[in-house]
Amino acid sequence: MMAREGVKLGLVGLGTVGSGVVQLLDRQREAFARKIGAPLQLVHVASRSIDIKPHPPLPGVRLSVDPWSVVQDAEVDIVLELIGGTDPARSLVLEAMARGKAVVTANKALLALHGDEVFAAAEAHGVRLGFEASVAGGIPIIRTLREGFVADRNKALFGIVNGTCNYILATMSEDGAEFAPVLHRAQELGLAEADPRMDVDGIDAAQKLTLLIMLAFGVRVPVEAVYTEGIRQLDQIDITFAREFGYAIKLLAIAKEESGVLEARVHPTMIPQDSLLAGVGGAYNAIFTQGEALGSSLQFGQGAGSLPTAAAVLSDVVESARAQTKQQQPRPPLGCAWAELKPAAVRSMDELVGEYYLRFMAVDRPGVLTQISGILGDQDISIASVIQRGRSDGDNTVPLVMRTHAATERNLKTAMTLVDQLPIVQGKSVYVRIEESLG
Amino acid sequence: MMAREGVKLGLVGLGTVGSGVVQLLDRQREAFARKIGAPLQLVHVASRSIDIKPHPPLPGVRLSVDPWSVVQDAEVDIVLELIGGTDPARSLVLEAMARGKAVVTANKALLALHGDEVFAAAEAHGVRLGFEASVAGGIPIIRTLREGFVADRNKALFGIVNGTCNYILATMSEDGAEFAPVLHRAQELGLAEADPRMDVDGIDAAQKLTLLIMLAFGVRVPVEAVYTEGIRQLDQIDITFAREFGYAIKLLAIAKEESGVLEARVHPTMIPQDSLLAGVGGAYNAIFTQGEALGSSLQFGQGAGSLPTAAAVLSDVVESARAQTKQQQPRPPLGCAWAELKPAAVRSMDELVGEYYLRFMAVDRPGVLTQISGILGDQDISIASVIQRGRSDGDNTVPLVMRTHAATERNLKTAMTLVDQLPIVQGKSVYVRIEESLG
Repeated sequence: MMAREGVKLGLVGLGTVGSGVVQLLDRQREAFARKIGAPLQLVHVASRSIDIKPHPPLPGVRLSVDPWSVVQDAEVDIVLELIGGTDPARSLVLEAMARGKAVVTANKALLALHGDEVFAAAEAHGVRLGFEASVAGGIPIIRTLREGFVADRNKALFGIVNGTCNYILATMSEDGAEFAPVLHRAQELGLAEADPRMDVDGIDAAQKLTLLIMLAFGVRVPVEAVYTEGIRQLDQIDITFAREFGYAIKLLAIAKEESGVLEARVHPTMIPQDSLLAGVGGAYNAIFTQGEALGSSLQFGQGAGSLPTAAAVLSDVVESARAQTKQQQPRPPLGCAWAELKPAAVRSMDELVGEYYLRFMAVDRPGVLTQISGILGDQDISIASVIQRGRSDGDNTVPLVMRTHAATERNLKTAMTLVDQLPIVQGKSVYVRIEESLG
Repeated sequence: MMAREGVKLGLVGLGTVGSGVVQLLDRQREAFARKIGAPLQLVHVASRSIDIKPHPPLPGVRLSVDPWSVVQDAEVDIVLELIGGTDPARSLVLEAMARGKAVVTANKALLALHGDEVFAAAEAHGVRLGFEASVAGGIPIIRTLREGFVADRNKALFGIVNGTCNYILATMSEDGAEFAPVLHRAQELGLAEADPRMDVDGIDAAQKLTLLIMLAFGVRVPVEAVYTEGIRQLDQIDITFAREFGYAIKLLAIAKEESGVLEARVHPTMIPQDSLLAGVGGAYNAIFTQGEALGSSLQFGQGAGSLPTAAAVLSDVVESARAQTKQQQPRPPLGCAWAELKPAAVRSMDELVGEYYLRFMAVDRPGVLTQISGILGDQDISIASVIQRGRSDGDNTVPLVMRTHAATERNLKTAMTLVDQLPIVQGKSVYVRIEESLG
C-alpha cells in the first residue's frame, strides 16, 4: 500500500529549518521518489503562525496552528518535529511514537534532556527515530559514529559544534575586536540569538556532546556531568598571545575515554594553529575523532542554516521511508539498545592533566615573575615558556603570560587562587586549557 | 537460527587488510555481538600462502589455500573478498553472490572495471554488497555520499584519494626533494608499491573517482572517460613556485556537474594554501564536496593501512550481519538500482575552463616574455601574474612562471605547443590546473 501511495509526512514547525525542508522536498521530489522507490508526500503542516506569517506555498497540504493535529493525523507516517525546545516537543514526539509513527527531529535539547524517555519510547513502540540534524546540521556525524565507525573503538572526540561561538572566536582572531562588539555583530547577522546564553555559555555544545558521547563511546552522560565553560571571559589579548604561542582558540566539546573513565567537557581550548580544527572558520562545524583502529578522522561542514539542516532532516526521512516501504524493523537510533548504554564514570575536572595558558595582569615591578613562578612551582606546575611584555599604559599593570607543562587542574586552580591574592596581581587571572593531540 | 548461532564469515585473502580484519574481529568481539545482537564468527579463511607465511592465530577456523572453498562453503553467510585485483576476485564475488551470500570487498579495481556485472549481480541475487573500504580506507565516504548526503544534490567533489601521491607531494613540499628520491623513500617505507604506476600515474585515483561519481551524482562513468594525469612530471621548482603564488599542489580526483554535463578528471592541482585540502598531510585522504543545500563539506581520515581499512570492511560486515539477523532485504549498494544510473555526459578536457600555472624554461635574453605572452594573448589567455627570476646557472635557461586568468584548455594546449616550438624555449613547458573554489 505504502509503496504505491507514497510515504506521508507531517511537519511540526515552519521556522528556518521547516521552511528549508519544504523547499528541498519540492526541489528534490523526483530524486527522493527514485531513491526511496515511492514518492514523499507532505500532507500536514502545523505552525503557530501559519495564518499570519508568510510561508512557502503548500498546495494540497492540510495546514493547522495546532501541532497535535499533525501528530494525531492517522494518515501521517513520519512526523518531523522542528519546533525545538523541550515542551511541547517532548509530549508531541512521545505521542507520535505511541501512535506508531516514525519521528525525525532536529531537537538536541529534547534528546539531551529527555533522551531516557524518548530513545526508550522509540524502542518500546518499534518506530524509527532520526536525529541527524540535532548535532552539526550539515555533517552526517550521527551516521558516521553509529555506522561508519561501528567497527572501531573511539578514544577521543573534539568537536566544534557551536557555529555562533566559532564565528565569534574566528572574527575576534581576524579582526582584533573584543567579544562584546563581535557578539553584537553576530546578532545583527542572525548568527547569534537575542539571548545568546545557550550558545556563548557553552550549554548548546554540552547538550550536543552528550549525544555524541552515546554514539562514540556507548555510554550515557547527563548534561549536568559535562564541565561547561563558555567564551565570554576571553579577551582579545588572550587570542593575540595564543597566536604568539602558535595556537588558535576554539570552543571545543571534548570527550576522551581511558581505562573506562570518561572526560566530558566544553571549554575554550588552545589548539595548534596548523591543526585541521584550527582551520575551521566562520560558522562551520567540525568533529575530530581518534579511534584505536581508524586513527585520526575529521568531518567538516555547515553547522546550521536552513538548507543544510533541512538536508540532514531529510536524510533521516529518506532512511525511514525506505524502511517503511520495505516494512523493515527499525534499527535502534543509538546503534544499540538504550539499556545497553551504561552511565559513564566521568573524571572530575580536578583530576584533569594537561597543559595550560596562563595570563596574569601584574604590577610592572621587579620580582613579580619570581613570586608567581614560586607559587606555581609549589603546586608542581612547571613553566614551558613566558612572555613578559612592555610597559604598562595607565593602570600600571602589564600582562604576564605563560605556557605550562602538564599539570593537574586541581593544582592549577589552587595556584591561580593563591596568585590572585598577591597584591601585585590585579583582577582575576585567566587560564585556558591547551590540547596538542589533534594531529 | 542465525540470531542464536551468530553470523558466519568467510575471508578470502590474508594480506595487510585481511590480517587487520582478523585482529579487529578478535579485539572487538563483544562490541560486535552487542551491536549486531548476535556474535560474528570467522569460520573459513583462504590465502595462497596460509601454509608458508605466518598469520594471526585462527583457532577453530577452517584454513585453505583455495579461495573457492570459502565461496562454496555452505556455512558462510558473508564473504570478505580481500585479495584485490580483478581476477579471480571477479569470479569469486559473482559466485558468492549467486550462492546467496553477502559480499564485502575492498576492491576498487574490481568495482571500477566490472561494476556493471558486480552491482547488477548483487541486485539480481538480492544480496548485500559492501564496499566502504574500496575508497579512502578509514573514511566512511561511501555511506556519507549514499546516506548522509542523500537529500542533497551534489555539485562538485574534490578528493585526495591516493595516499602514496599525497605522501610524495607533501614530502617534496616539506623537504625540497625531487620526485624520484621521494618515491624511493616511499617505497622503502611501504607507502608505495615496487611498481608504482597505479598510484603515481593516477590510475588508482581514477578508479576510485568512478565509484564516488556513481554515489555523488547518480551517473556512470567508465574509467577510460576519466582524464588521468599522474605526478611524475612535477619538479621541485613547480612546488616552490606554487608556494610563492599561495598554492599547494595535490593530486586531486575531481568531478563537477553543471547542466547535466559532468567533468571527471584526475591530475595534479594547485589549491589555495589555506584551504582544508591543502592541510591534508602525509598518507591521509580527504574528500571535499559542494552540495546545493549542504554547501561545503570535508571528510578526512586514514586512506589505507591495515586497521583503518579493516575497520571499514567490518563496518560493512556489521551492517550486513544486522540485516541478516533481522532478515531484511538488502538496500541497493549504490543507493538506487543499477539501472537507474545513466551513463554520464562527460565534458571533453578541451572544453574545460580554468586558471593555469605555466612554467617555461627560456633562454635568458630580452624579448622572451614578449614572445610568450604574445602567443598566449593570441589564444585569449590573459596573464594574472608573472615571476621571472635570476640568472641562469649553466644551461643558460631561466624559469619563467605565470598564473593565468580563466582560459579554455583547448586554447591553452594550442598556446603551449606553439611556445614549445620557440627556439628561445628549452624542453617541454609545464602547466598545472588551478582550483580556487575550495573554500
